[in-house]
Amino acid sequence: MISVAEAQSRCLALVRPLHPETVPLTDAAGRVLAAPVKAGRAQPPFAASAMDGYAVRAEDCHPGAVLAVVGEAAAGHGWAGQVNPGEAVRIFTGAPVPAGADRVVIQEDVTRSGPRITLGDTLENSTNIRPEGADFASDFTLSAPRMLTPSDLALLAAMNAGHVQVTRKPEVAIIATGDELVMPGERPNPDQIIASNLFALKAMIEAAGGRARLLPVARDNEASLMTVYDMAMGADLIVTIGGASVGDHDLVAQVAARFGLQQSFYKIAMRPGKPLIAGAFADGTAYLGLPGNPVSAIVCGHLFLLPMLRAMLGLTDHLPTVLRARLAAPVAGNGPRAHYMRAHLAEDETDRRVTAFDRQDSALLTVLVRANGLLIRPPHDGPRAAGDMVEVLPLLP
Amino acid sequence: MISVAEAQSRCLALVRPLHPETVPLTDAAGRVLAAPVKAGRAQPPFAASAMDGYAVRAEDCHPGAVLAVVGEAAAGHGWAGQVNPGEAVRIFTGAPVPAGADRVVIQEDVTRSGPRITLGDTLENSTNIRPEGADFASDFTLSAPRMLTPSDLALLAAMNAGHVQVTRKPEVAIIATGDELVMPGERPNPDQIIASNLFALKAMIEAAGGRARLLPVARDNEASLMTVYDMAMGADLIVTIGGASVGDHDLVAQVAARFGLQQSFYKIAMRPGKPLIAGAFADGTAYLGLPGNPVSAIVCGHLFLLPMLRAMLGLTDHLPTVLRARLAAPVAGNGPRAHYMRAHLAEDETDRRVTAFDRQDSALLTVLVRANGLLIRPPHDGPRAAGDMVEVLPLLP
Repeated sequence: MISVAEAQSRCLALVRPLHPETVPLTDAAGRVLAAPVKAGRAQPPFAASAMDGYAVRAEDCHPGAVLAVVGEAAAGHGWAGQVNPGEAVRIFTGAPVPAGADRVVIQEDVTRSGPRITLGDTLENSTNIRPEGADFASDFTLSAPRMLTPSDLALLAAMNAGHVQVTRKPEVAIIATGDELVMPGERPNPDQIIASNLFALKAMIEAAGGRARLLPVARDNEASLMTVYDMAMGADLIVTIGGASVGDHDLVAQVAARFGLQQSFYKIAMRPGKPLIAGAFADGTAYLGLPGNPVSAIVCGHLFLLPMLRAMLGLTDHLPTVLRARLAAPVAGNGPRAHYMRAHLAEDETDRRVTAFDRQDSALLTVLVRANGLLIRPPHDGPRAAGDMVEVLPLLP
Repeated sequence: MISVAEAQSRCLALVRPLHPETVPLTDAAGRVLAAPVKAGRAQPPFAASAMDGYAVRAEDCHPGAVLAVVGEAAAGHGWAGQVNPGEAVRIFTGAPVPAGADRVVIQEDVTRSGPRITLGDTLENSTNIRPEGADFASDFTLSAPRMLTPSDLALLAAMNAGHVQVTRKPEVAIIATGDELVMPGERPNPDQIIASNLFALKAMIEAAGGRARLLPVARDNEASLMTVYDMAMGADLIVTIGGASVGDHDLVAQVAARFGLQQSFYKIAMRPGKPLIAGAFADGTAYLGLPGNPVSAIVCGHLFLLPMLRAMLGLTDHLPTVLRARLAAPVAGNGPRAHYMRAHLAEDETDRRVTAFDRQDSALLTVLVRANGLLIRPPHDGPRAAGDMVEVLPLLP
């Protein structure tokens, strides 16, 4: 059995960044920018008024000064003339500041009378002008790779990038296996249960920027498995759920071998999720065989599947975020396998506190649903007291 | 000018939860469950083997015992007989435990010879059986409202819920206004800029569970505004960007009044974002008029728009999460308006630290893109020293 870190490293070695594609900016949220974007222009592209008021020359700007209003500059409609001494131009927020003017007096500080304004007794110190390029210069570059946030999209728009190059979405084929499974909404026989983890994995994959292809449940026989593997081909990553332990009925790996699967590893020193298989098919397609217990499959999804997805997306931070937290209650010593305990993370005034749930059976979805983190217990970690600092993998909603 | 809290409360008073709709479980990720779901069955629905091994009677279970293998139970294929004293049934993970058996001896602890097994010298203590209903009983209910996580979907699947009732996605019409705006990819005149914030708002709305309808830019004249307002009608919330300050060219509110807009408030005591308008049109449709500066629009989106969206989704926690953090560097005293300063949040071994950026001009998208939080300064908050505890609104990617 290899360690979790070694297994993660071998999983990442099975994948590489996919090719980029071009999408309109409206479809780019959550996508991974694949190539740097250079601004074609500065922002603002001209010295712009930050307020509604009057553009004047700073030298004219003293209490009680009377100035002649010679024009008007609105957003999108600059004033082409020159502001000479003794003159002012009515100006609105976002308008280009006309030549000659180097200050905007806000309208609250001005009394207007026909074509003349009189400046008030107390004037602000600010110029109320945003200089050309204050936000970014025309050679500004947004670097890649990065997963595009809402603010990134606003910045790219301001840079006049109507389309961007993003990494193609990795397509992940998901195969649940087992004669005991029926799909939700069907009527199970008395010895059957409902396939559940593929729904969680699909949602995790899609939230992380991939595309999930849910395939029919593969039955515990060669013909059914071969049919479903055939349907999975062409995906960037093929994931099976279940059938990865040592039972006589576990044909999943045997049938995969018919498709040229080269196993990278089988079994890792962790709970939940010991029977994990990773490898590559003859055509290079990556393969991950997750354990069948729902909690095991989902935890292994966070630890192995999502890092592979992030690598295919071209991101550079592959592994899950790990936080430090203080144990709210003691935990017993751990055995030889790393244990990812379902836990609840809470913030109080000064601390982040974590409490492991009592029931850690890997079949308990009701416990997983209450968990917002996994308390990470290294192999052979001794008993820990309340107040000890520990590591936690947060489970984002 | 009203406070941020008062403005949030008035915004929330303008909306109410939308009607539910039924969606298949595969489409339910990130949707808000609108009605509680009751499990139709227990999970597991029968006492199930947690391991591959042999189902036996506990009374027969002592080192060296020799038992007759009388049948086989696999996942999905139970064994219908009774395990009598001296008998064992070959069993696989997930299979129903046959009548009479109350313990599973793992295969590693057994030597098999033809139709007989001999138990090993050291036997585990565990029964290796998951009792019927260990995860949930048949009357278990998943409560509503809740935004469905990947784990929730797995649980709902296990409960045999093939479809669920979720709140309809709120549709938000977004109107950018101003003669100075062109769309990304177009060629702006020298006095024009690129519309940017609507892309950020669309991404924020969709990540929060809504649907954004981007409308053409409305120009600074009544005819254009009326055309675009007409196109916006039918949405659950109509959002305008810009045109909400006091300039002569700010027709947005005037034209909205023709559609029966009843203003709830206008101007709030905050930076960035003072000129914020909220109200309702004659037909009850909620209206939010965001300021035109990109950072103002996006910050007000977090503080006012997303809470309205969460209320329409039927969620009960509307306001943004606020964290406590320690100031990494001092900040000057604040004026009479609450200030939401663009800031960087970092975690170290024991602390969460926040640093406000030097440049807080509300036009700077490059600063917003670097920010992962907003440092909240209450009105008249005094100067703060490094090490002081402050409140921060995290900006999720």
